[in-house]
Amino acid sequence: MAAATSNGKSSGLRSVFLQVYARLKSELLQDPAFDWTEDSRQWIDRMLEYNVPGGKLNRGLSVIDSYKLLKDGQELSEDEIFLSCSLGWCIEWLQAYFLVLDDIMDGSHTRRGQPCWFRVPKVDMIAINDGILLRNHIPRILRKNFRERPYYVDLLDLFNEVEFQTASGQMLDLITTHEGEKDLSKYTMPVYCRIVQYKTAYYSFYMPVACALLMSGENLDNFTDVKNILIEMGTYFQVQDDYLDCFGDPKVIGKIGTDIEDFKCSWLVVQALERADENQRKILSENYGKSDAAHVAKVKQLYKDLDLESVYLEYESKSYEKLIASIEVQPSKSVQEVLKSFLGKIYKRQK
Amino acid sequence: MAAATSNGKSSGLRSVFLQVYARLKSELLQDPAFDWTEDSRQWIDRMLEYNVPGGKLNRGLSVIDSYKLLKDGQELSEDEIFLSCSLGWCIEWLQAYFLVLDDIMDGSHTRRGQPCWFRVPKVDMIAINDGILLRNHIPRILRKNFRERPYYVDLLDLFNEVEFQTASGQMLDLITTHEGEKDLSKYTMPVYCRIVQYKTAYYSFYMPVACALLMSGENLDNFTDVKNILIEMGTYFQVQDDYLDCFGDPKVIGKIGTDIEDFKCSWLVVQALERADENQRKILSENYGKSDAAHVAKVKQLYKDLDLESVYLEYESKSYEKLIASIEVQPSKSVQEVLKSFLGKIYKRQK
Repeated sequence: MAAATSNGKSSGLRSVFLQVYARLKSELLQDPAFDWTEDSRQWIDRMLEYNVPGGKLNRGLSVIDSYKLLKDGQELSEDEIFLSCSLGWCIEWLQAYFLVLDDIMDGSHTRRGQPCWFRVPKVDMIAINDGILLRNHIPRILRKNFRERPYYVDLLDLFNEVEFQTASGQMLDLITTHEGEKDLSKYTMPVYCRIVQYKTAYYSFYMPVACALLMSGENLDNFTDVKNILIEMGTYFQVQDDYLDCFGDPKVIGKIGTDIEDFKCSWLVVQALERADENQRKILSENYGKSDAAHVAKVKQLYKDLDLESVYLEYESKSYEKLIASIEVQPSKSVQEVLKSFLGKIYKRQK
Repeated sequence: MAAATSNGKSSGLRSVFLQVYARLKSELLQDPAFDWTEDSRQWIDRMLEYNVPGGKLNRGLSVIDSYKLLKDGQELSEDEIFLSCSLGWCIEWLQAYFLVLDDIMDGSHTRRGQPCWFRVPKVDMIAINDGILLRNHIPRILRKNFRERPYYVDLLDLFNEVEFQTASGQMLDLITTHEGEKDLSKYTMPVYCRIVQYKTAYYSFYMPVACALLMSGENLDNFTDVKNILIEMGTYFQVQDDYLDCFGDPKVIGKIGTDIEDFKCSWLVVQALERADENQRKILSENYGKSDAAHVAKVKQLYKDLDLESVYLEYESKSYEKLIASIEVQPSKSVQEVLKSFLGKIYKRQK
């Protein structure tokens, strides 16, 4: 029953969230800073529909969840709902921007069960400019709806800083993969953690909470502990992602992982390298990053020989305990709730 | 003698300007928001050197020129020089960001006399992320050096708005060229002007003056006339660019124009379409946008038959007169000076 209520609530929230998307889109399509033509309005409309609302929306929805918890569960006003949803959508827009461009850089084929945007007929390299436009929509949304708020400049700074960190993490990933292709031993735990922290954790975990904190009138300088805990959680989340990419059920996770084929600096290969003897290292360097099934199977067999499943389960419970301990020393109960709610959503996830 | 002094001054300014570049670069390479590795620092250093300082620097330098004129020629303090140079560099960074990505979208080969960045070995699609990083450097520079200034938030808004307008202009250009390839009659004067205004004029002409005005403590809302005049000048500048692409001396302009081959919505083709009879329109549609010399020569011959050179000279002097008239009704003498200085730099230019 509790679950049903909570599902009911959350599907209600999702529909409110999607209504806010429709409003933001319509505001963007009438932005007075540009002299729109019918063709350009249609292009942006289609581009947004294709790339923005079709994901799981976890990052966006968690802004509203977090803001509610920070307000100790009080009913939110219409205004607060709209504003927190808008910030949630800004994160979804940010995500869409990264994904559109990442897919071009990686030469990917599908995304969210449909062809990548740049593979849609007549889009091609226009997708680069569409990515830029997605990114540009964020300050347009912020200016239209937050300009008069006391935390407006902090929002701009936050989005700028987090975008910079994400792009820097992406750079690190691209450079590391280049280096790793020549010398697999470059893939170490500190290297792995640095990439994940910057490329994923800031925008996926810290950002939603930081938005909710700013809306609550807080100064982010007072929340470095919270930031560090969320970065830690983001790392934990990415380790799961890497594990599921290889050992998850494709039917459940909704895609077929290709980290081995793509020579990714994955948590699994880093763990394997830490544990491999000379012979096993040889197997790795001969088979990692090759796209045919036989090579991939040899890598997977090695992961099994090294019992990385147990290593993973051990990592998972250790991380959980450590995170819970850091959360419980936080002075604010409502901040504790926010952090536990994030952790609850990802602990032992299968997808 | 006056010219020598002015050259002396301007080469002194250029060297100060380049010193500020070195300082900004060094600040960026130590940005505490990222946990730098030696490799990543080297990558960014090389990427910046390759893409940022190698242009004509007109846009950047004109921030300092304009700021000086707004201060009625008073000596600038060290602080004012550094800040106005920094804003100038932000515009150069913006330009570098657009060019790196535009070159990928257009499949270009060379830029500023060297291979386009994405064609440099080992760069390839990493160039997309480098473009993003260039863009991200702007708010990093602004935050580090302008955070405590009263106009900080206005600077952020200005850069966001102008980037949005430029990307929207680029979208319009990409969509229009697609449409034009099917039906050349889509290339009309209003279409042309809208593309130029958004894609080029805001960031190249309005932006430097707007930066100087903000530094002088002005509210940009009070300068819509100035904005319109600068947009007008930007359009005039682009018309020159289009003319020189076809009729300029490649040795003087430093590149071989390919607007005809590339099916560009150029001022020349728009003028030709306005004047062509049925037979001449047929010549255009059969020859425009083809890359072999014979087709290109037929288009150029048509431009000569229609005497577009006279049309251009007439346009040039009419525009000049109109601009001077609008400038001279401006209430502020120093603003008049700023606008005249811009106009002086471009009137009757051969490159």
